Amino acid sequence: MQRVADLDTPSMVVDLDKLEANIQRLQASLDSLGLANRPHIKTHKIPAIGHMQIAAGAKGITCQKLGEAEIFADAGFDDILIPYNLVGAPKMERLTRLARRVKMTVAVDGAVAARAIAEACDAAGVEVTLLIEVDTGMHRAGVQSPEDAQTLARAIADSPGVRFGGLMCYPTKPAMVAFHAEVRDRLTRDGIPLEQFSGGGTGAQQVSKDAGCTEHRSGTYSYNDLSVWRAGNCELDQCAMSVLVTVVSTSCPGFSTIDGGSKTFTNDALQTTGVNGYVREFPEIYLEKMSEEHGVLNLSRLTDASARPRVGDKIHVIPNHACGTTNLHDVVYGYRAHGSRPGDGTLSGDELIEVEWPVPARGKIR
Amino acid sequence: MQRVADLDTPSMVVDLDKLEANIQRLQASLDSLGLANRPHIKTHKIPAIGHMQIAAGAKGITCQKLGEAEIFADAGFDDILIPYNLVGAPKMERLTRLARRVKMTVAVDGAVAARAIAEACDAAGVEVTLLIEVDTGMHRAGVQSPEDAQTLARAIADSPGVRFGGLMCYPTKPAMVAFHAEVRDRLTRDGIPLEQFSGGGTGAQQVSKDAGCTEHRSGTYSYNDLSVWRAGNCELDQCAMSVLVTVVSTSCPGFSTIDGGSKTFTNDALQTTGVNGYVREFPEIYLEKMSEEHGVLNLSRLTDASARPRVGDKIHVIPNHACGTTNLHDVVYGYRAHGSRPGDGTLSGDELIEVEWPVPARGKIR
Repeated sequence: MQRVADLDTPSMVVDLDKLEANIQRLQASLDSLGLANRPHIKTHKIPAIGHMQIAAGAKGITCQKLGEAEIFADAGFDDILIPYNLVGAPKMERLTRLARRVKMTVAVDGAVAARAIAEACDAAGVEVTLLIEVDTGMHRAGVQSPEDAQTLARAIADSPGVRFGGLMCYPTKPAMVAFHAEVRDRLTRDGIPLEQFSGGGTGAQQVSKDAGCTEHRSGTYSYNDLSVWRAGNCELDQCAMSVLVTVVSTSCPGFSTIDGGSKTFTNDALQTTGVNGYVREFPEIYLEKMSEEHGVLNLSRLTDASARPRVGDKIHVIPNHACGTTNLHDVVYGYRAHGSRPGDGTLSGDELIEVEWPVPARGKIR
Repeated sequence: MQRVADLDTPSMVVDLDKLEANIQRLQASLDSLGLANRPHIKTHKIPAIGHMQIAAGAKGITCQKLGEAEIFADAGFDDILIPYNLVGAPKMERLTRLARRVKMTVAVDGAVAARAIAEACDAAGVEVTLLIEVDTGMHRAGVQSPEDAQTLARAIADSPGVRFGGLMCYPTKPAMVAFHAEVRDRLTRDGIPLEQFSGGGTGAQQVSKDAGCTEHRSGTYSYNDLSVWRAGNCELDQCAMSVLVTVVSTSCPGFSTIDGGSKTFTNDALQTTGVNGYVREFPEIYLEKMSEEHGVLNLSRLTDASARPRVGDKIHVIPNHACGTTNLHDVVYGYRAHGSRPGDGTLSGDELIEVEWPVPARGKIR
């Protein structure tokens, strides 16, 4: 079997033991809370990993774009939520085609989007379940009040082609306890059943339980990343995904440069701390600056200056944001570590590649 | 012909009149300065646009990764510079294969990278020209002093398999006048000819001329973007590329949300001003926040609140960073505006698509 250390760089690599453990851990957490699991596939964009999530107990999946849903429907997934307003004639055509073959649920936050979906579904003779998105603080979409939710729910309940399902939010916040209760009361008086409440956010499963959610959507938990670790929702050792890179320059005093930058890691979640990537083999060194193809490692915390990475060294970098990084890689290599575990300062000659996955839902911007 | 306004969104679109004018304008500028033009293809990643640059007078092209060079060599480009340390056995194999069929020039900044290329080329029976990268302030790669450049030039001149060509920097800075002169003096004493000096940076062609460069590399000038405009190196009306998006939510007071975020535009060059994208149809509105699939437009500067974008409206957004945006799009639509010009507040029903380009060098991280 090929060794990870022999891969050309940059290459996205996934520790299969950690990936499997992450999938099992979240499923067990949601099982114990009595919440259905609807993982978001945006983190990996790979049907084979989605099948692992379903096999572990997930009831369905979440896709953010129709293009992702089309790829996953082709791969056999039959219960898909798109938690996003779908707007425009080409998307109505694609949505109704999907609804002919799989169970589609879509979130909306306004009457215009809801009406267009209802009319398209009615004309096509299909039914889509609509959830109402609630704004919990991202201020990018979502109704702002229980009254607005009630008004929209009434409109949906009165429309052919669509079924009113309930509510959706991201991330679930404690304020949803009261919001949910009030919407439920109002709709009960209207005779409209509120069956589903889809909450979300890696690490927010207890909040979803408290808010009365029926299901929970997590994405990043499958790979984990520095942002999840900083939020206290995983251990560093539970980060399954990293990018193997090569040191290409040591000319600038105080820095070493790797062959991956924002085109490899994204500039997502750039931290004011200046720490934008964790280097597994050199925990004192961190990815500080990026341009498109250069990543600059800050060496200032290195206690033994003679141990600095040298040109040609290959290292694993855990990025800030797994989902954005995934969207930049056409291929992902799944490996298992054999013998001594990484993290002890040795390079990873004992990591053997078991699978090479294409990333078919990468780049599905539509 | 299909109208831009009928495209599904998000879609990257390029105004062909502006693209052609941008290509002609830079070529004329470099012609008048007597500098050879070696455009960087990372901005567009499309061979057809590279051929337009060659037809206008460019002597060759610049690619940042071997994967880009392989795509462009396949498309008929025969003089390619990679201004980047290539490190590792797989890259040596790929470089020597390329050097068998096209003229390859590679920049290095240290003896390890130079020696590996020389040994690989010697073993393969090919020759590659090496330039020495000089650090002009990016602090990511490049020799730090004329002495270091001399030492490395001597090593290269003594190596079989490679030819010493000269210097390379990005971006060209005024300090390069003295640096170049001192390196030239030192190498003259050594009997080593310094034939080439490749400078770079959109807008920096006069600085390259002053520093004694023989050629100039620009990338972003072909499309232009908000960053180039902010730097004073283009007019807004010279931005040829934009992304057509649809307004999908108006639920959050003070904001409208579009169906493209960091997965469509990147988070590159996020500005402290909070302005991360220019909206052509609504100049008072700007792209403020992004998550992966949401872009949040700030409406606070809108003088006529009744004129705010509505759900379903399609608008053109000029992004901060053209090159990063290009890397997220599998397809680009080239159009020409007919009839009334955009910018007068009307939507763009008169933009007709002439060409649909795949982006074959997208995602070439290796």
